[in-house]
Amino acid sequence: MRGNWKICLSRRGQILTTDSLIPVRPSDSWAMIRSRTLRLTPSPTMTNQANPNPRSDPNAVVFAGDGEPHTPESTIARLNTLLEEGKLSPDNYSDGGTVTELETRMAEELGKEAAIWMPTGTMANIIGLREHCGTNARVVLQEQSHIYQDEGDALSRLCSINAVPLAPNRPYFTDDELKETFRLSTTGRVLNPVGAVSIESPVRRQAGQITPWDEMIAVTDLCHEEEIPVHLDGARLYMMSAATRIPVKQYTALFDSVYVSSYKYFGAPFGGILAGTSDFIEGLFNDRRMFGGGIPFGYLAAGLSLAGFEGFVEKFAESFAKAEELFESLNEINGIQVRKFEHGSNIFELILDGVDADGLVKNLIGDGIVLNWPNAEWPVPLLHVNSSILRRTNEEIVAAFAESVGRS
Amino acid sequence: MRGNWKICLSRRGQILTTDSLIPVRPSDSWAMIRSRTLRLTPSPTMTNQANPNPRSDPNAVVFAGDGEPHTPESTIARLNTLLEEGKLSPDNYSDGGTVTELETRMAEELGKEAAIWMPTGTMANIIGLREHCGTNARVVLQEQSHIYQDEGDALSRLCSINAVPLAPNRPYFTDDELKETFRLSTTGRVLNPVGAVSIESPVRRQAGQITPWDEMIAVTDLCHEEEIPVHLDGARLYMMSAATRIPVKQYTALFDSVYVSSYKYFGAPFGGILAGTSDFIEGLFNDRRMFGGGIPFGYLAAGLSLAGFEGFVEKFAESFAKAEELFESLNEINGIQVRKFEHGSNIFELILDGVDADGLVKNLIGDGIVLNWPNAEWPVPLLHVNSSILRRTNEEIVAAFAESVGRS
Repeated sequence: MRGNWKICLSRRGQILTTDSLIPVRPSDSWAMIRSRTLRLTPSPTMTNQANPNPRSDPNAVVFAGDGEPHTPESTIARLNTLLEEGKLSPDNYSDGGTVTELETRMAEELGKEAAIWMPTGTMANIIGLREHCGTNARVVLQEQSHIYQDEGDALSRLCSINAVPLAPNRPYFTDDELKETFRLSTTGRVLNPVGAVSIESPVRRQAGQITPWDEMIAVTDLCHEEEIPVHLDGARLYMMSAATRIPVKQYTALFDSVYVSSYKYFGAPFGGILAGTSDFIEGLFNDRRMFGGGIPFGYLAAGLSLAGFEGFVEKFAESFAKAEELFESLNEINGIQVRKFEHGSNIFELILDGVDADGLVKNLIGDGIVLNWPNAEWPVPLLHVNSSILRRTNEEIVAAFAESVGRS
Repeated sequence: MRGNWKICLSRRGQILTTDSLIPVRPSDSWAMIRSRTLRLTPSPTMTNQANPNPRSDPNAVVFAGDGEPHTPESTIARLNTLLEEGKLSPDNYSDGGTVTELETRMAEELGKEAAIWMPTGTMANIIGLREHCGTNARVVLQEQSHIYQDEGDALSRLCSINAVPLAPNRPYFTDDELKETFRLSTTGRVLNPVGAVSIESPVRRQAGQITPWDEMIAVTDLCHEEEIPVHLDGARLYMMSAATRIPVKQYTALFDSVYVSSYKYFGAPFGGILAGTSDFIEGLFNDRRMFGGGIPFGYLAAGLSLAGFEGFVEKFAESFAKAEELFESLNEINGIQVRKFEHGSNIFELILDGVDADGLVKNLIGDGIVLNWPNAEWPVPLLHVNSSILRRTNEEIVAAFAESVGRS
């Protein structure tokens, strides 16, 4: 078995995510395998104080990540501003103060009665699904979801919940597939009803592709008919909403509970929000503590998140519209094509024809335009849209691409 | 059952920990009970930017908490200093940068091969014990321990581990008690050996009382003989070491793994360290992520913790010696007596004779000396020693007590 695994290793340092596929050899020790997997997760867009990289240039356009890159300098500058403005009020083990302010605000923004701040999205998803399930044993989700692939099987190992994966290697499942799964769970020798359904959208492992709106309605309608709670892992919900022009609250209205990240693009160093009915959320602070997530003082992270939310929706919409115009212009350059997914969010494929990818990335960095190095996560390079695109005119960006393509 | 419970509610606002006992009535809803229990945990010594309290006075002597009180102002000032000194290097999901620096430093300080940073002590304890147990089902611990009383039965609910409590209402168990527990676990109809032993020392619920040194040797020796891993929940290990004058490394050498807090007295907003052999620690970052503790950027908290560690041992030793002298002088005042526990750490009982406790606390606050309000956690008021005692001379503190006692 071990011989068939593929492990991705990074190559060129900080601005890499992952790189070439390296098979695990039967002779490899578990320690070697584990130490390799440590490096697998793409870093959020934070850059190092000691070793600044192109992303930390405040004028760079960074086609990587969902938010603007932050540095220790920029993060602490924002904290100083929040302090001056009197916007930091300490919590007591994640209760009260700025943490409660963030919860109240995000519940409102997500159109839910209540919300609870969690230190990570993993904890938000797991605690939410665990609460939905009660004594039911099955959660249905995408095989490509973060919960199924990247959370260490916490559902089964910590919660005695069986994660049932649908839609292998695809971004979403259909209502027909879900219906069949419901049927199987209630026709075995032991009645074993599904306790919750989880939909991740956009899907990180599928280059930000989403569950299309009509399918989302069909799937959530089915859940409501069957009275099975349905959860949205909407870590990047705001990216999906910007791409589809469907307001966030229209999405969240379909779901019993929603998780959104507060560090991927709102500028907090960590944290996320789980929102739902008051009945659902009330008491989850106990579960948060049981999981080891009762952060003694979360107000700094919560304050950064609240500040990052201000004006975010408008700014991201502007960025996305600008990107769409930009990509039309880029497609007039010979040798490159920016391809939009049929059901995508803020991530686009960069198709190269006769252009060396490594050379292109290197040349663009020289012009203050940062792309992820080509890597094994996806067959072609990907362009992520975030608000750093507003730092330069489209004309400048197009000129830089044209010039870099010419040299690559 | 519910009618017999006692729930502590706070009374006077921020500088309170908990207060009078209020029985739960059978008519109380679970929601009411749960919302009350939310407020139970004594706050670390952080004070509010919007509503400053006596603790935030930088000249106050605060006989509460294990570390010096912090405010948003003081915390961000320290971050500014760390930034100027180039001491903040971002991590990638709690891997690398300042987080790794903290882990390396604390492993060394604790005399262990390796260490891993965890967002909370709860997570450090649970993940450590889970790793020790493997497929064994029992952890032996104190009935009064944080793990048994204050972590939501995470061992059983998340890890399928049976927590076996010893020494009800006492600070520690003996090697004889432990031996009997080992015997019972291996003589039932199913062989069910103990997977790990945990010792909390000092014990928070027992006013910081500790397992005496000789007993600690006897208990850990027994564990080593039986080849059962033994874990130290040493959240306040440095308080114990200051009180007994036994160096930290002498304690940690007795244990297979150790948890120490990095927010209770090192000045971080959250976090703790789990240390042990390289084999034990290696790979636990996966478990940390599975539990939802893979904090995307922990370097700010880690940096504050590292800075807070500098000179801490010396400063706390000085504070403790000063407190011992102070308490001798206080005991010459009629009506008050500071009582030392036979096996205590940095917490002392304040026995009042004909002096009104509420009045005394109120009068002392006027003199810049802060005590916890009398509360139901312990039969008599408690004095916690921390380094804020260095802010005033003992003569000044004695004079303030004498004057306040006279008016109470």
